[in-house]
Amino acid sequence: MAVYTEVSDDALVRFVAGYDIGTVLSSKGIAEGVENSNYLLHTDRGNYILTLYEKRVDPGDLPFFLGLMEHLASRGITCPLPVKNRAGEALGELAGRPAAIISFLDGMWVRRPTAAHCAEVGEALARFHLAGADFPIRRPNALTLPSWRPLFERSRARADEVAPGLSADILAELDHLEAAWPSDLPAGVIHADLFPDNVFFIGQDLSGLIDFYFACNDFLAFDIATCLNSWCFEPDLAFNITKGRAILSAYERVRPLTDRERTSLPLLCRGSALRFLLTRLYDWLNVPPGALVKPKDPIEYLRKLRFHRTIADASGYGLALDAPPSAGVVPAGAAS
Amino acid sequence: MAVYTEVSDDALVRFVAGYDIGTVLSSKGIAEGVENSNYLLHTDRGNYILTLYEKRVDPGDLPFFLGLMEHLASRGITCPLPVKNRAGEALGELAGRPAAIISFLDGMWVRRPTAAHCAEVGEALARFHLAGADFPIRRPNALTLPSWRPLFERSRARADEVAPGLSADILAELDHLEAAWPSDLPAGVIHADLFPDNVFFIGQDLSGLIDFYFACNDFLAFDIATCLNSWCFEPDLAFNITKGRAILSAYERVRPLTDRERTSLPLLCRGSALRFLLTRLYDWLNVPPGALVKPKDPIEYLRKLRFHRTIADASGYGLALDAPPSAGVVPAGAAS
Repeated sequence: MAVYTEVSDDALVRFVAGYDIGTVLSSKGIAEGVENSNYLLHTDRGNYILTLYEKRVDPGDLPFFLGLMEHLASRGITCPLPVKNRAGEALGELAGRPAAIISFLDGMWVRRPTAAHCAEVGEALARFHLAGADFPIRRPNALTLPSWRPLFERSRARADEVAPGLSADILAELDHLEAAWPSDLPAGVIHADLFPDNVFFIGQDLSGLIDFYFACNDFLAFDIATCLNSWCFEPDLAFNITKGRAILSAYERVRPLTDRERTSLPLLCRGSALRFLLTRLYDWLNVPPGALVKPKDPIEYLRKLRFHRTIADASGYGLALDAPPSAGVVPAGAAS
Repeated sequence: MAVYTEVSDDALVRFVAGYDIGTVLSSKGIAEGVENSNYLLHTDRGNYILTLYEKRVDPGDLPFFLGLMEHLASRGITCPLPVKNRAGEALGELAGRPAAIISFLDGMWVRRPTAAHCAEVGEALARFHLAGADFPIRRPNALTLPSWRPLFERSRARADEVAPGLSADILAELDHLEAAWPSDLPAGVIHADLFPDNVFFIGQDLSGLIDFYFACNDFLAFDIATCLNSWCFEPDLAFNITKGRAILSAYERVRPLTDRERTSLPLLCRGSALRFLLTRLYDWLNVPPGALVKPKDPIEYLRKLRFHRTIADASGYGLALDAPPSAGVVPAGAAS
């Protein structure tokens, strides 16, 4: 939840005049999204989203994010599309911040996903991975293995305030992951944050993916791990293997996993859980004064991490290990 | 800024099915409004506001608020209009709270009002007062003179933490207002919170009034005092008499003030400033844990109060005291 930047009405009207989207009739700050300020604009042509990029977003990354949305949309992935201004630019400036107007995507995110929703997500993720294969801009993942230890160092001194023994637990996990992390998996553009609040549905049908502001180049299966973490645990943090199977089998119908991806899955799930544990831990310990955002509980991801340590192979997530890969194997185009 | 209540997608779809407003395509929490949770609904028929009434609102007051909106709209005041459900009710229940769907009102609130905006507000306020005259439900003002001392008692012990000497200052003001407060002014339905964020404009034209959740019966001129406080001070808290004159003369073109209202104006302005000082002081000292709302600065209203102490008569606000009331005097219909 966030509206960090107040936009004056006259500045907004001047900004929108640079676009061919009609006259602004109303503008409402949206209480969603943590990284940026978002406004819903109603014009005499329809609804649009105005995004102001706040300081957590590197302006140098914006051509990647905005270009990726255009690239994906042109390949049939339903996602918000940046609207170009009269100068042909997707990126402008408003209230001293980089700003863009994005098409409004209908749909609602599902608070209690079912296995049917998980299957839709698995399929959409695989299609996303295929569609991103020929996207020309590259952006390394700033939140994968090499970043985790330095990130933890910024929370380490106070980690045990959050849970006794947390610091030692994370250090042991870092040792393990640094020793075992794979280096040879199919890679490409990943969403990197495909939580339920970034997937819209209308009724039972997936209507689009949003929030590409963590997207980057990394192992494709790391994205699957993040979906297993964010879609398949019940509120009591029990893993629902039916949902895991739904994601994995729907994904594989579009892009079958390689053997190395299958065997790496428990490790990738541990890494993904640690990544969210670490960022949530840092945010938990560093709530800025006057913050409008309630930090998310890091312990949820500690418990998920501990679950993944008990998983010996990908069958623990519902993957049918003895089924042969389907005949129509689609190679990941951007394997590194 | 507030979304206090999360509404699950399936509960929302069930709730909306009770209304003839089409199918919900999206729902976004709006980062505006302090008292209630507001969602912008986009359906295949258009945009609507869904309001969930939180615990600061007494459910017993909702027929007054919703009925007032209907009453005003039927008399030509542009304001949001409650949508009745298929059972003919404006009020339902969602996520355990009283809830209503309200028509979406286009327009934006003006961050830096000009004298022209102030004139529009003065005229709209007078029309509001006339339109409310025959509204049959009554609701006493819970935030006028008798409530102020008990309200202050809840902050008194810690008031000097906010500003040295604040407690003594407020106590002296309470003594003065309790001795001098008028009892015989024209009364009726007042908005009671007509700050700039509750008045929408499209371009230079006022497009409607919103947020009737403080509306009540009280002196009509107390509403004018609140507008002078909230529209006519510059960011450095200097009073802009041009803006004051704009509000007052536009108001008087619709409803001329009585002599007693004119002479009472400085006192009413002090009372209105104290009312907002006291509620802001209480909120400042009582930010709930995990609050999403940043409390507003009480000291702004202390400085406004001190300004009003220097005003000898209503000419200090720009009122033309020697001009005779215009010929077409419209009596305040609901004078108590």
